[in-house]
Amino acid sequence: MKESWSSVDTLETNFRPLVVIELAKGTKEETIEWFTKRIVDKKTNGGAQLLIKPLVTENGGENIYLVGASHLRLLLGAENVGLVKECNDNSMRAFTYSSRKTFKDFADDNQNFLTMSECQYIIKHELENLRAKDEKMIPGYPQAKLYPGKSIVRRLLTNGILVQIFPLHDREELKKLRHTWYGQVKIGYQPLDEIRCYFGETIALYFGFLEYFTFALIPMAVIGIPYYVFAWEDYDKYVMFATFNLLWSTVILEVWKRICAVMTYRWGTLLMKRQFEEPRPGFHGVLGINPVTGREEPVYSSIKRQLRIYLVSVPFVCLCLYFSLYVMMIYFDLEQWALDYHEENKSNFSSLMLYVPSIIYAVVIEIMNRIYRYAAEFLTSWENHRLESSYQNHLILKVLVFNFLNCFASLFYIAFVLFDMKLLRQSLATLLITSQILNQFAESLLPYWLQKRYMKKMKERMHSLKMDTDLSLVEQVNSEKEMGTYFGTFDDYLELFLQFGYVSLFSCVYPLAAVFAVLNNITEIYSDALKMCRVYKRPFAEPTANIGVWQLAFETMSVISVVTNCILIGMSPQVNALFPDSKMDLILTVALVEHLLLAIKFVMAFVIPDKPRDIQIKLAKLEFESLEALKQQERMQLTAMHFAVLLILYGIRNFHCLYQKGNISTRALTYQAQSAENGFLRLVSILQLFVLSQLAFLICPEGSVEMCAHHPSYTIT
Amino acid sequence: MKESWSSVDTLETNFRPLVVIELAKGTKEETIEWFTKRIVDKKTNGGAQLLIKPLVTENGGENIYLVGASHLRLLLGAENVGLVKECNDNSMRAFTYSSRKTFKDFADDNQNFLTMSECQYIIKHELENLRAKDEKMIPGYPQAKLYPGKSIVRRLLTNGILVQIFPLHDREELKKLRHTWYGQVKIGYQPLDEIRCYFGETIALYFGFLEYFTFALIPMAVIGIPYYVFAWEDYDKYVMFATFNLLWSTVILEVWKRICAVMTYRWGTLLMKRQFEEPRPGFHGVLGINPVTGREEPVYSSIKRQLRIYLVSVPFVCLCLYFSLYVMMIYFDLEQWALDYHEENKSNFSSLMLYVPSIIYAVVIEIMNRIYRYAAEFLTSWENHRLESSYQNHLILKVLVFNFLNCFASLFYIAFVLFDMKLLRQSLATLLITSQILNQFAESLLPYWLQKRYMKKMKERMHSLKMDTDLSLVEQVNSEKEMGTYFGTFDDYLELFLQFGYVSLFSCVYPLAAVFAVLNNITEIYSDALKMCRVYKRPFAEPTANIGVWQLAFETMSVISVVTNCILIGMSPQVNALFPDSKMDLILTVALVEHLLLAIKFVMAFVIPDKPRDIQIKLAKLEFESLEALKQQERMQLTAMHFAVLLILYGIRNFHCLYQKGNISTRALTYQAQSAENGFLRLVSILQLFVLSQLAFLICPEGSVEMCAHHPSYTIT
Repeated sequence: MKESWSSVDTLETNFRPLVVIELAKGTKEETIEWFTKRIVDKKTNGGAQLLIKPLVTENGGENIYLVGASHLRLLLGAENVGLVKECNDNSMRAFTYSSRKTFKDFADDNQNFLTMSECQYIIKHELENLRAKDEKMIPGYPQAKLYPGKSIVRRLLTNGILVQIFPLHDREELKKLRHTWYGQVKIGYQPLDEIRCYFGETIALYFGFLEYFTFALIPMAVIGIPYYVFAWEDYDKYVMFATFNLLWSTVILEVWKRICAVMTYRWGTLLMKRQFEEPRPGFHGVLGINPVTGREEPVYSSIKRQLRIYLVSVPFVCLCLYFSLYVMMIYFDLEQWALDYHEENKSNFSSLMLYVPSIIYAVVIEIMNRIYRYAAEFLTSWENHRLESSYQNHLILKVLVFNFLNCFASLFYIAFVLFDMKLLRQSLATLLITSQILNQFAESLLPYWLQKRYMKKMKERMHSLKMDTDLSLVEQVNSEKEMGTYFGTFDDYLELFLQFGYVSLFSCVYPLAAVFAVLNNITEIYSDALKMCRVYKRPFAEPTANIGVWQLAFETMSVISVVTNCILIGMSPQVNALFPDSKMDLILTVALVEHLLLAIKFVMAFVIPDKPRDIQIKLAKLEFESLEALKQQERMQLTAMHFAVLLILYGIRNFHCLYQKGNISTRALTYQAQSAENGFLRLVSILQLFVLSQLAFLICPEGSVEMCAHHPSYTIT
Repeated sequence: MKESWSSVDTLETNFRPLVVIELAKGTKEETIEWFTKRIVDKKTNGGAQLLIKPLVTENGGENIYLVGASHLRLLLGAENVGLVKECNDNSMRAFTYSSRKTFKDFADDNQNFLTMSECQYIIKHELENLRAKDEKMIPGYPQAKLYPGKSIVRRLLTNGILVQIFPLHDREELKKLRHTWYGQVKIGYQPLDEIRCYFGETIALYFGFLEYFTFALIPMAVIGIPYYVFAWEDYDKYVMFATFNLLWSTVILEVWKRICAVMTYRWGTLLMKRQFEEPRPGFHGVLGINPVTGREEPVYSSIKRQLRIYLVSVPFVCLCLYFSLYVMMIYFDLEQWALDYHEENKSNFSSLMLYVPSIIYAVVIEIMNRIYRYAAEFLTSWENHRLESSYQNHLILKVLVFNFLNCFASLFYIAFVLFDMKLLRQSLATLLITSQILNQFAESLLPYWLQKRYMKKMKERMHSLKMDTDLSLVEQVNSEKEMGTYFGTFDDYLELFLQFGYVSLFSCVYPLAAVFAVLNNITEIYSDALKMCRVYKRPFAEPTANIGVWQLAFETMSVISVVTNCILIGMSPQVNALFPDSKMDLILTVALVEHLLLAIKFVMAFVIPDKPRDIQIKLAKLEFESLEALKQQERMQLTAMHFAVLLILYGIRNFHCLYQKGNISTRALTYQAQSAENGFLRLVSILQLFVLSQLAFLICPEGSVEMCAHHPSYTIT
């Protein structure tokens, strides 16, 4: 692995570039100097104590910097971010530098103990936690205000001085990963552990969910095929299929929680303590005291935020939903008008006109989605959430509701107002298949093609510049910095969520939906993998323990699908034929069945434990051990303290005795001990030297890191 | 307060009896000796290090023992059980002996720092954790097997050697509490904090919930009264009332969570770490290794338990439910038959016969309830749950389902099969009012009367025995040991749960139910208070942070009530008159409204935070502080360790130097130092003596506790 980095023109042989920082062109020298100094500065001086060096290119002055860190610094950083790693006894524990020897695969010279994505995550964390001391502004930019404790990187980003920070790809590793992931044509599981090592937990979890979801759809698809093949229309068969689907969707969502727990336990993120969350970059407010930390930072009244949410955002979203429904109604009117026109005229032009409403509607929906997305982002940002997580949740909720309505409103209208099952099936199939094809094209294949063309062009340009054609670091950084940025798993999950809606909401009308979903997901895995490996910049790893709000979204969808399917079955002519005399009995029966199914769903969700038994036991064991250790530790610590006091007193008395006797001084004693021929005395003084160095390290660990890093030849002589 | 204990013939003046242990009559001397020795024995020898003394009565040999503990022992015990107390800075923190000075109202001579119920809880905890060492059986009882780590008290209880353990009342405090609680005729809140101090959190929380629930019902009652007074029968008014009720019941349950969090934060139980739960007394299995603690204890396969639950218990419960429904059908048949008989004969006898079915049914229901309760207890105990909490949950679930059906099945039948709203209203009123009156009578007033009669008799007997008529400890213990045992809040909550059912399930038919519920609850508070203070033995305090499974039960009831009320409104003639043409539209409208209400309920439950903002901040602050402290502590501890090592080495070297010089020995040095006239040397040796004693305390704190307790005059001279 080291070979791919060895050719680099780095200052030190040990410097391994991990993260790239791109500053805006024309950034003032003064600012650059101050910023790089703060990055390199010691922890005790409020710096990040990382290594940084400029990328020297042929045309120069591109303001691109490479950031790295010494091995020791990374280990201390791993402790800082609360990384959980596997121990020698196969249990998972939070890594601490002092207990480093107990961890699996740890060795002082093993640079691979931390994966590259972990190192990059640590560096990102350290950079983001580089805080202003007493600077009032960023040097050179008086408009970029700072206050003590403000994250410097975030202020630089919001002021446009810092263009981007991104982690570098590891070409060798990426090649390996690509090969095992989608390089071979074989049926098998994805290499989730390798994906996690390379891209981090959030992305690995998405691929894990995608894979699991695909497998979980297979039974639905298998059961759905005969319905299509034999054109079964018997109501009893449909009822069976729908019932199976509804219970199955509950089971798969519950089982996913368990599988997710197993995976994230293995990855260590299940145990990772939630770090204290910093305010998100866009958060603003008057400077005040945070009641939790007691530190000075901007505060914003929660009541104001609530008012903004309930008085502005909620009405706005409702208005948008209403507007979307209104547009849908216009579409249906247009459709009807086109149909009537075609009936009247029966010309070529009129048959073409039949397609016009659909095209207009599709375009309008797409436009509305885009505008709404911007509006939602603006509104959520205006709500001024303190934490990134709560910002994300509010944004996801807003977008989800609107997308749900946009996608499914027309289907609901066809099903429950027009009562046209044939049209429903047709629309469903069209919507599902076209959206899947378009998505995959727009999401991966098109960017991949564009990317490839761009790369080719750039390579030609490089060639013409007579550069070294070998893959140098400069070329890598330059090509990666132009790649698109992956904005997180939101759109990928949204796609899956809507697909789940198509499959489950009307499953009893169109059993084939699951088949298409399975087929789509298999190619989706490949196209998403391609996207991650080829199209986008490498994203920073984000530790996560579950799929968060999406679990709730999928569960809500499966509750809604119980209602829709029950109504659909109740409306089917076969079921209606069963109750020839009384529509009322039919409806009551349907309502009863629906309530029963819902009750069963909730009981099942309640009865199936969220974590498998062995994970539960492991977690309980850890909790028990930490309780025991806490008791032990308190006792130990006090003992050590008292012991130290005792020894100090003992030492003072001895010294005093000797001093009073007048025949010895400490300096003389030390000299005497060091020069003594006696082996025992020599051993004692060497040990003492060692202890002193250790003590210095403990009192100021970051300082000594620097010392060790700069004096690798430091040994006890 | 001390006066009430001072008259006692205790061995030491400091001995304050807290807990009473009653052994079976005729228990072997050998067993008593062994048991008391284990209670008194030092912690290091595996004892409980408590104080115990026999209660000397005139007729002797009653095998009653009083247990107490020294103040220091109780403080160490408080740390052990993880008690959370208020600090000087008004924050709540887990009490530790080493940080005792930072707690509010702490002083070494303040015996009231721990409330009496806390002391009793600590003693109970210590007694229950008195574990067998290498005894194979209880001495004198070869059939009572022991294994290392088995709780001795639990084995003694299951073998009937130990009759009971109960905490003593504090007559003075109880008198004060009675006065403020129900002594004065005044409208006001209950003294929940005092109740909590005297009876512990579980009981205080029950009374808190009862009070809150009564207040919460008042709006329903107030709105319900005009419906009765003006005999409103307009559907729109009913719809309004029902809608208000449904949303209100959601709000009150959510708000309760918040109020509960505020209360339990103040009491410290919200922060109390869940102790590692020990196996419950009845749990049995083959000896194995607990995978969590790694200790030897009985283990029982979880699969076997699951099989027992799903293959035996669940079918049995279903059978019982079916049987109960069957009995109800017979009752309705009998009723019909009696009505027909009366119609035919019209005699006095026949009109008497009209009451027979109801009476038989009431008796049968009561019998069924009793038998079922026994069966449920037997089954749940046979399921062999390891933890008391999971045993309780399974038992509550079983009893709840059956009681729900027994109470409400006939009402459901009248409402949704017979469609007889008049009969429904009548039955509802009868059931609600009679059950309330009967309950209060059977639960408090009858036992109180019996108790009073018994006390009078005993007092007379005492008088005839020419005993000191003043309230002596002997008399107190003897009277309290005969009092009934309070078996927890289960039945009280069950009563409230069923009342909530009467109020909410059919609220739109009988709005007056809330009025009766409010009236009942006001008297219920007084009768329950009477029961706690006068009828039963003092119960052990149980720390708890919420009302547990009952929250879920009440929430489920409020979901069911949405469904029933929607159906009832849909069935009302006024609403039917609105849809004269199509029954179908009516049902669809009702179903739509029901789904909307359910959706609103879930959204409300989701949106209202479970904890008020200030409690959230306080909890976040504590978490943040503990994270920061952990980082600090680790560094500190290591520093201390290294410092100690350094000093040891320094000491060794100095000593070695001196030894080599041949002019001094450690013993001589120590002697010299102690006999020195020099003030500095003297100070050093005194300090050293102090440190040594502290060190001894830390290495074996329980041992030194004993030392301190037995030598209160121990000072450094």
